[in-house]
Amino acid sequence: MSDRVKAFAPASIGNVGCGFDVLGLCLEAPGDEIEAWLTDEPGVKINSITGDDGRLSLEAEKNTAGIAIASFLSVTDQSKGVTFDLHKKMPFGSGLGSSAASAVAGAFVANELFGRPLTRQELIVHALEGEKFASKSAHADNVAPSMMGGFTLARGEEPFDVATIPVPAELRIVLIYPHVEINTSDARGIIPTEVPLKKAIRQWGNVAGLVTGMAKSDFGLIGRSLEDVLIEPHRAKLIPGFEELKAAALDSGALAFSISGSGPTCFALTYNEHLAQAIGTAMGNVMKSKGIDYTLYHSKVNQEGPKILTS
Amino acid sequence: MSDRVKAFAPASIGNVGCGFDVLGLCLEAPGDEIEAWLTDEPGVKINSITGDDGRLSLEAEKNTAGIAIASFLSVTDQSKGVTFDLHKKMPFGSGLGSSAASAVAGAFVANELFGRPLTRQELIVHALEGEKFASKSAHADNVAPSMMGGFTLARGEEPFDVATIPVPAELRIVLIYPHVEINTSDARGIIPTEVPLKKAIRQWGNVAGLVTGMAKSDFGLIGRSLEDVLIEPHRAKLIPGFEELKAAALDSGALAFSISGSGPTCFALTYNEHLAQAIGTAMGNVMKSKGIDYTLYHSKVNQEGPKILTS
Repeated sequence: MSDRVKAFAPASIGNVGCGFDVLGLCLEAPGDEIEAWLTDEPGVKINSITGDDGRLSLEAEKNTAGIAIASFLSVTDQSKGVTFDLHKKMPFGSGLGSSAASAVAGAFVANELFGRPLTRQELIVHALEGEKFASKSAHADNVAPSMMGGFTLARGEEPFDVATIPVPAELRIVLIYPHVEINTSDARGIIPTEVPLKKAIRQWGNVAGLVTGMAKSDFGLIGRSLEDVLIEPHRAKLIPGFEELKAAALDSGALAFSISGSGPTCFALTYNEHLAQAIGTAMGNVMKSKGIDYTLYHSKVNQEGPKILTS
Repeated sequence: MSDRVKAFAPASIGNVGCGFDVLGLCLEAPGDEIEAWLTDEPGVKINSITGDDGRLSLEAEKNTAGIAIASFLSVTDQSKGVTFDLHKKMPFGSGLGSSAASAVAGAFVANELFGRPLTRQELIVHALEGEKFASKSAHADNVAPSMMGGFTLARGEEPFDVATIPVPAELRIVLIYPHVEINTSDARGIIPTEVPLKKAIRQWGNVAGLVTGMAKSDFGLIGRSLEDVLIEPHRAKLIPGFEELKAAALDSGALAFSISGSGPTCFALTYNEHLAQAIGTAMGNVMKSKGIDYTLYHSKVNQEGPKILTS
């Protein structure tokens, strides 16, 4: 047990193209930080929140990290309490799994404070309680990669079934976050509830190809398979310049390009640092030409997930 | 170049549960045999067919193997001809990829006669020409495993994209073929053309889990993921005793149980020879109790695919 722990939990790419609601990829940065300490008074309290432009409530039961910690305490130790500072270091509603990162940071830091009674896999359900509050759905495609690191499959929700999928060490991810806001529930609302079987077959063939390509370090197969024929065509319309961004990334040598989660962040995959730089520049130029502010992120696959920060 | 070649091409499991139309698994037996020889007269001729109860035409252009050989010749060498004997050594309409095995045997043997100008991957399109004639569709979920061996993904049809997926060496397959006939086009006709997105997500989560489980030798994940929520519920109704067969296999320790292709053959997976025997006995007892004749097959995953037989 520690009296005080500071930890970081990373952003993540949900869906990863064809793997809607089930696949996720953990990023090195950005991410959220939480510093938490034990209190003699039971319950969860928020001491402060920074980086949220005042948008988040200081009531722990209305905060994703607070809810995750309360869920953790409900199955471990309710004799003590946890108070924390939350430092939001990534944009809201960006498609980078911001609420999942906060929830994972909360569950992770609580587990550290109590001497690690649970495994990372066991912490997922608690982080997901927080994620449910923020996103109104119980999909683990961001929580799973943020908590476990790497490339993850969250197969089925009840019961949870999370697996990590091997990825090639050379994989590089370039993300562009256009500074426009998309509401996740809007992004979900435009998706049809019935789909043609033919397209669904194409989609699960792509999912199988993406997983196989990753496991075998077959970059060609990864590139051909990271194709979302069901969701991207609908959500792309909500992202200004999507088709031009995609063309710019692929023309610059990207293996594949798609939307991160429900957007507006988009990501490109490559296996080479120089190509990654060129892809980022090309995507940035598209946004500049449209007068849209943006942020670029470069990342390897983060195999570590959340980590303790020494302050 | 050889003047005369005899070869065997194996049966296969199409779909492999959740991987409808895209995944396939190559079996050690049964399979078909073709003995073929070069002729000075161009064109393809059938000398004899055995094991078909007189059901197959002796006209090469109405035979899956004949069509596959003609397709092969059209891109390689039309100055010579090929004549062959076809020995059907597996049941028709069983869900074991009988027409694919004949087509693969044809393309494979022709390639051997002409000194192997094409790779196995390149031979797939020619075998598929034969398969198209027999099954009225261009799915490679049987042709790909029969030609490549192993556990295969046939992702997309135009262009073809075939990949092999690693499998654990311990994997054992037990198949039961109830002696009832199901027409593939009937079995296809009862499948809805639109499916709920929720079930499609479940299905591609299962596909990702099955591929990951195979690649990581995670038998638990294989068992949980080999679940077909979209096709099996419809096709199971065409197979007498399906639910009892499934219960008998799972109660005997099978990791998973589903329909092979469009049935009526069903298969169970396990990782242990003793369990395989017990599963076979239990499934056989179900058929006996219903007075249905059946054949049991035991197989490892056939990593070799078609092979030359020394006569």
